[in-house]
Amino acid sequence: MSGLKLRIGLPKGSLEEATMELFEKAGYIVARSNRAYRPAIDDDELEVRLVRPQEIARYVEQGFLDCGITGKDWILENNADVHVICELKYNKSTSLPVKWVLAVHENSPVHKPSDLQGKWIATEAVNLVKQYLNKIGVEAHVEFSWGATEVKVPELVDAIVDITETGSSLRANHLRIVDTILESFPQFICSHKVWADQDKRRKLSSMALLLQSALNARNKVGLKMNVQKENLSAILKILPSLRNPTVSPLADGQWVAVETILDESKVRDLAPKLKEMGAEGIIEYSLNKIIY
Amino acid sequence: MSGLKLRIGLPKGSLEEATMELFEKAGYIVARSNRAYRPAIDDDELEVRLVRPQEIARYVEQGFLDCGITGKDWILENNADVHVICELKYNKSTSLPVKWVLAVHENSPVHKPSDLQGKWIATEAVNLVKQYLNKIGVEAHVEFSWGATEVKVPELVDAIVDITETGSSLRANHLRIVDTILESFPQFICSHKVWADQDKRRKLSSMALLLQSALNARNKVGLKMNVQKENLSAILKILPSLRNPTVSPLADGQWVAVETILDESKVRDLAPKLKEMGAEGIIEYSLNKIIY
Amino acid sequence: MSGLKLRIGLPKGSLEEATMELFEKAGYIVARSNRAYRPAIDDDELEVRLVRPQEIARYVEQGFLDCGITGKDWILENNADVHVICELKYNKSTSLPVKWVLAVHENSPVHKPSDLQGKWIATEAVNLVKQYLNKIGVEAHVEFSWGATEVKVPELVDAIVDITETGSSLRANHLRIVDTILESFPQFICSHKVWADQDKRRKLSSMALLLQSALNARNKVGLKMNVQKENLSAILKILPSLRNPTVSPLADGQWVAVETILDESKVRDLAPKLKEMGAEGIIEYSLNKIIY
Amino acid sequence: MSGLKLRIGLPKGSLEEATMELFEKAGYIVARSNRAYRPAIDDDELEVRLVRPQEIARYVEQGFLDCGITGKDWILENNADVHVICELKYNKSTSLPVKWVLAVHENSPVHKPSDLQGKWIATEAVNLVKQYLNKIGVEAHVEFSWGATEVKVPELVDAIVDITETGSSLRANHLRIVDTILESFPQFICSHKVWADQDKRRKLSSMALLLQSALNARNKVGLKMNVQKENLSAILKILPSLRNPTVSPLADGQWVAVETILDESKVRDLAPKLKEMGAEGIIEYSLNKIIY
Amino acid sequence: MSGLKLRIGLPKGSLEEATMELFEKAGYIVARSNRAYRPAIDDDELEVRLVRPQEIARYVEQGFLDCGITGKDWILENNADVHVICELKYNKSTSLPVKWVLAVHENSPVHKPSDLQGKWIATEAVNLVKQYLNKIGVEAHVEFSWGATEVKVPELVDAIVDITETGSSLRANHLRIVDTILESFPQFICSHKVWADQDKRRKLSSMALLLQSALNARNKVGLKMNVQKENLSAILKILPSLRNPTVSPLADGQWVAVETILDESKVRDLAPKLKEMGAEGIIEYSLNKIIY
Amino acid sequence: MSGLKLRIGLPKGSLEEATMELFEKAGYIVARSNRAYRPAIDDDELEVRLVRPQEIARYVEQGFLDCGITGKDWILENNADVHVICELKYNKSTSLPVKWVLAVHENSPVHKPSDLQGKWIATEAVNLVKQYLNKIGVEAHVEFSWGATEVKVPELVDAIVDITETGSSLRANHLRIVDTILESFPQFICSHKVWADQDKRRKLSSMALLLQSALNARNKVGLKMNVQKENLSAILKILPSLRNPTVSPLADGQWVAVETILDESKVRDLAPKLKEMGAEGIIEYSLNKIIY
Repeated sequence: MSGLKLRIGLPKGSLEEATMELFEKAGYIVARSNRAYRPAIDDDELEVRLVRPQEIARYVEQGFLDCGITGKDWILENNADVHVICELKYNKSTSLPVKWVLAVHENSPVHKPSDLQGKWIATEAVNLVKQYLNKIGVEAHVEFSWGATEVKVPELVDAIVDITETGSSLRANHLRIVDTILESFPQFICSHKVWADQDKRRKLSSMALLLQSALNARNKVGLKMNVQKENLSAILKILPSLRNPTVSPLADGQWVAVETILDESKVRDLAPKLKEMGAEGIIEYSLNKIIY
Repeated sequence: MSGLKLRIGLPKGSLEEATMELFEKAGYIVARSNRAYRPAIDDDELEVRLVRPQEIARYVEQGFLDCGITGKDWILENNADVHVICELKYNKSTSLPVKWVLAVHENSPVHKPSDLQGKWIATEAVNLVKQYLNKIGVEAHVEFSWGATEVKVPELVDAIVDITETGSSLRANHLRIVDTILESFPQFICSHKVWADQDKRRKLSSMALLLQSALNARNKVGLKMNVQKENLSAILKILPSLRNPTVSPLADGQWVAVETILDESKVRDLAPKLKEMGAEGIIEYSLNKIIY
Repeated sequence: MSGLKLRIGLPKGSLEEATMELFEKAGYIVARSNRAYRPAIDDDELEVRLVRPQEIARYVEQGFLDCGITGKDWILENNADVHVICELKYNKSTSLPVKWVLAVHENSPVHKPSDLQGKWIATEAVNLVKQYLNKIGVEAHVEFSWGATEVKVPELVDAIVDITETGSSLRANHLRIVDTILESFPQFICSHKVWADQDKRRKLSSMALLLQSALNARNKVGLKMNVQKENLSAILKILPSLRNPTVSPLADGQWVAVETILDESKVRDLAPKLKEMGAEGIIEYSLNKIIY
Repeated sequence: MSGLKLRIGLPKGSLEEATMELFEKAGYIVARSNRAYRPAIDDDELEVRLVRPQEIARYVEQGFLDCGITGKDWILENNADVHVICELKYNKSTSLPVKWVLAVHENSPVHKPSDLQGKWIATEAVNLVKQYLNKIGVEAHVEFSWGATEVKVPELVDAIVDITETGSSLRANHLRIVDTILESFPQFICSHKVWADQDKRRKLSSMALLLQSALNARNKVGLKMNVQKENLSAILKILPSLRNPTVSPLADGQWVAVETILDESKVRDLAPKLKEMGAEGIIEYSLNKIIY
Repeated sequence: MSGLKLRIGLPKGSLEEATMELFEKAGYIVARSNRAYRPAIDDDELEVRLVRPQEIARYVEQGFLDCGITGKDWILENNADVHVICELKYNKSTSLPVKWVLAVHENSPVHKPSDLQGKWIATEAVNLVKQYLNKIGVEAHVEFSWGATEVKVPELVDAIVDITETGSSLRANHLRIVDTILESFPQFICSHKVWADQDKRRKLSSMALLLQSALNARNKVGLKMNVQKENLSAILKILPSLRNPTVSPLADGQWVAVETILDESKVRDLAPKLKEMGAEGIIEYSLNKIIY
Repeated sequence: MSGLKLRIGLPKGSLEEATMELFEKAGYIVARSNRAYRPAIDDDELEVRLVRPQEIARYVEQGFLDCGITGKDWILENNADVHVICELKYNKSTSLPVKWVLAVHENSPVHKPSDLQGKWIATEAVNLVKQYLNKIGVEAHVEFSWGATEVKVPELVDAIVDITETGSSLRANHLRIVDTILESFPQFICSHKVWADQDKRRKLSSMALLLQSALNARNKVGLKMNVQKENLSAILKILPSLRNPTVSPLADGQWVAVETILDESKVRDLAPKLKEMGAEGIIEYSLNKIIY
């Protein structure tokens, strides 16, 4: 019992499930239940609050939360002055960043950003869009959209700025992308005041290490095989160099065991080659964490 | 084919189902399907758009929609200058207005509105709250809430202003109501320009009549019975006077048929009395519309 | 505001939906929501409690509830001394009573009740079964079953006594019915003390009238037609005599309007005949209540 | 108990729900439950079988079913020699027929049916399509599609023939309609042998009358109002002539009651006019059946 | 094929899913399907029956089941004389025991068990409660509750004894805990007669070993790293001593591989330290079983 | 970027989920979403199409697909001339083949295949059945069944040929199996032309290796333990010989680490023995792939 207590804001909504899974992979047990905005966690130094991602940076800046995870987009939208501990490259269902795109109807006369002069733009991120327009020197009406933004062109507005992951919702609504104004990954943040505290900084750094170790292990696997000594150097040459393979002697002195960590997608090309080169008993297994 | 065409905004979201049912009761067939923001309607003079209720008044004022149905609350929040054709007294599941209440944690030191001086208030209706604070002469920080407003006290804010229908969500979150700042029913609105057009005004008035006729028939029933002439005047006295009962002669000259329209809840008390007073063959049936 | 207040127990579980619909048909608005054991009702003299049907009679007898609706089966199982205001002939999905049947495996040597001597019987209604065995002079082990009773034969017990509506669950489990020990409909009950109170008795009688009026209207319809005077007597002869048809003169002196109430299933045979006999403009409509 | 017994095939699948509702409207109680291909019906002369609509006509022709309801499309596809008792103008969710359309990818070089010469066409109704191609004198490869037909162009086939109700699935798959090859409503059919039997023919005719009476009442309503005698003739003139309105005298000799049946959609225009012309107490109610 | 056959009762209901997962972790394949009370298992010596946990101990005692898994609570409630092979520390969703608590309304005058003298208590475990009351020398009315026990205070009873895992249902119903009367984990049991049989005892012991091996692996992980020989002893000192780490030489004579098993939650603190102390290539992986 | 591009057809429907999981196990990421017949895959040389299994062989033969996975049954039904790269022994939920069985009603006079002479048989695989009848020299009417085949006997047809996995649907419909006409596993196929292309053949062989490696790992586990040198030979003797165990020296010269791969079901018997023979720190872990 350290006495340390950090209130952490995690994103309610579309990133919620992926964030919970990340914490579980990182070794925490989080007890979620219906309507629970305050899920229990098995770490006495943490108090979890589920908060809309749009608001987390603001509450961290104001000190109502000590730290949190929220997108780079919403930190910028809130113009929040917070410390970024690390970026966490995950997303709702892929490992790609979310994109904020400027889109118009496929038949719209708008073809480049400067065509927006004097037009109406709807978005959930009004400040982001104003900053963007400012940067490119265009003046337009930007209005807050309460949702279903992609169905508003062309009848209610001329253009929208909205999040897209796969572009399928855009296509379904006959939209055309004019520009990408931001790519955003979740950020692990805290207030400057919290970061200045030695104990809290150590705790947050350790959490960052665990969260990133869990992300490292995504799409990576362990590969283990037995190799005759005479084939070893050839086989080591084709193994990816993500980390030095572990070579250990076997009881039968002619053979060694080789174990390595690599991208699961690399196994596709590697497996047939290893077999050809005399590796035996090749097995692949999953990993929870890789701590660099 | 009149050539007339009105684009009408109906509320997407919590009022959507009730609004669609109201239109069906009023005699329209609206073809809804998944993801459809532009449902078909069997009236060539109408084009339906499903829009967030928060935005309908704004788009009607700007002329992007000709008319729409949205809450009085959101008209005020947008400070929209529109024409109110009529109020429609319905709601998601009851016939009661939604209430915007000022609430604090049950242990909060705030007991009356003036205790809010200098505090933080979260709400989805920032302008409504600022107007209210202005009226009562209190200064406080009002911040926009992206949702889950009721879980924010007391950690993230001191007070909230939020919608409540039954109060059960407030109780579950240990909130205490300090004041009711607005009661709101849906309004059927159009722009001043549309209302000034004679043909459009006639169309909108006729729609208002149908929508209200359908609302009139809610919770009302028809009651029909046979009565001996000698009992007629006594029975007529106890029938509610919502509308004059229809008395028609029967083939058997000693009897008349009496038919009336009344609140369904009145039948509870009336039925035993009518039976006692000699009414026979009492039946109750449902109504679609009552056109006053 | 009469000051009268009756706490009524309605059955939680399989009869819940049908009971709520019956109350709605009878003119009450009951506001149900998730986990609500205390739904609101629009009658200030009533307080609804949802209680397991197995327990309602016991709580009414003990005075913890003033009145309630529960099956005849559970009144007998509890051996509860309560006043039955009226029987209500409805069920989960049909208008048939539930049946408690004694069943064995299709290959069991038990073919008649007396074959059960010394056997093991599982049931949720231990007292009902003991009363039955007593009546027929058979001694057997009766044990309480916590559920899934029908899968227990023949491995865990020799026979079961369980509810069946359609017999399909019995067939699916390869059971054979040996005897029906009880047929049961819901009963509207109160304690003797409550019934002795003049005001409460009037209230309960009036509720009984409404509930039965709503049940009366199930599967019944109104039929209305125009008939030439010369055909009237022939047509009146073939109309079912559930209640005297209402005959009213029409403006056109040659014709009368005839209106009657009948079982919907009778319309099948009647409609072609009425058409043949010269009835015109025949329409059929639904009823909410029929108050005899 | 007439001894008569007809085995009727009703369509399993997309028309199932609408067909069951039609039977209920027609006065039958059909007890459906999970996986039940043999639902109970409250008419001792009928035995219901749920059968794929594609197969009903075939089984009726072969005599394994006595009668059934299935689409005109599948009767033609099976080239079945059956007696059509009547057409029933209903559908899954509208009152419009299903359409079988010939469609190609929006970028396809096929623009008219004759462009299909030598191409590949996938469809669930191979015979229908061959009959169509024969009629227009085009030769093409027609292959049976096991489903998901609309995603097969252009990669797997050049064109498809498929059912469409709203065209939205076609649009979503970027298809263009080249021709409509058939419009189809459900048909009430029996074998010629069954129709030749006097008793069975009477039964089937009576069922046809009930089913059509229920369809007649769809989208129709009853309208009732009180009118002063001096306004009567003017009001009667504007009432639609679907059926003569019923005019009945009221106790108050100056007034009459007028009751009529009309399309619900007509009420929209009529209601304001009736009010203007002095009609009072106008109410609208629903109908179950209209028997012409 | 040993000829051995044991009928095992597994708990139907809230523990079902967790029990099935435990068996899968232990290496069995259990084929569950809808309504299946007799799921297939890939072990010819076992026959699975799903039975209510309340009844398993009783049926094991009577010999209708050979062995089973059920809570200590229900063994005591049934006062069943069975052999406990081992305790299995799992639960529906956590690794904590279920608790039977005595609870009253938060405003109740009852503050300690002895305040219950003469009161009414509802519970699903009547015998457990009577044994408890007996032990503490209090007399009260204990009645069987068919469910929804927590909503019965204070209107229907004075106190309840019910299961709680997180206490959230108690809080939601405004209950206060007065005492905990039992903590209970599932037990693997058999009859004394079965245990006396040498072959069956060997089979059951082996099953117990597998089930406990699977439980051992819950919340434990494997950790593997490469360490320079000079750092080895320091690193070994901080590794938890759950089991001796495996140290194996690597081809590169300066390094050894270290592998250990530890609580996943320990990794949080350990990972940053190991990194600091020069461990490289640290990976974490999951385990199915740990056989002590 | 090799420029190679293969269009692969995967089975839509009952095998879809299992096939996707197999690809994921094999190291591919397949992005499925609603209505997606063209899911993205993270391999630039592949283009996935979801196609009904009944049609895949036909489209591969015609060249519209390059390769695909479909059952042996549908290859035979289509009489498709394709190259089988390898058989893949998986299924919807088990590792058993699907069986096509000839079944009749339990009371049918048909007891052996030859009793079918002149009878009607319904099936979804008309050609399969005709081939079978031909082989056994029986003539019968075989008609295509659009579904729900198992409910057609005995009223609509005399016998059916349908797929069964567990036989439970047959039992529920009171069917009796007369013969098994085919057992079928999925096959990985391509056209002869594709197989003749050296690059494509290499790609397809490599995919086959990965898919089979993933299947190899099903129901297999890794087992790891520490063993004193003196016990080693005894322990090695009882380890299954699926693959030579890896024996590696430990730092403590008296002990070695033994690691092996075996059927998970074998662990049941082995674990107690290993413990008895002095193995320590026995752990079991899962595998993704085993590459022979």
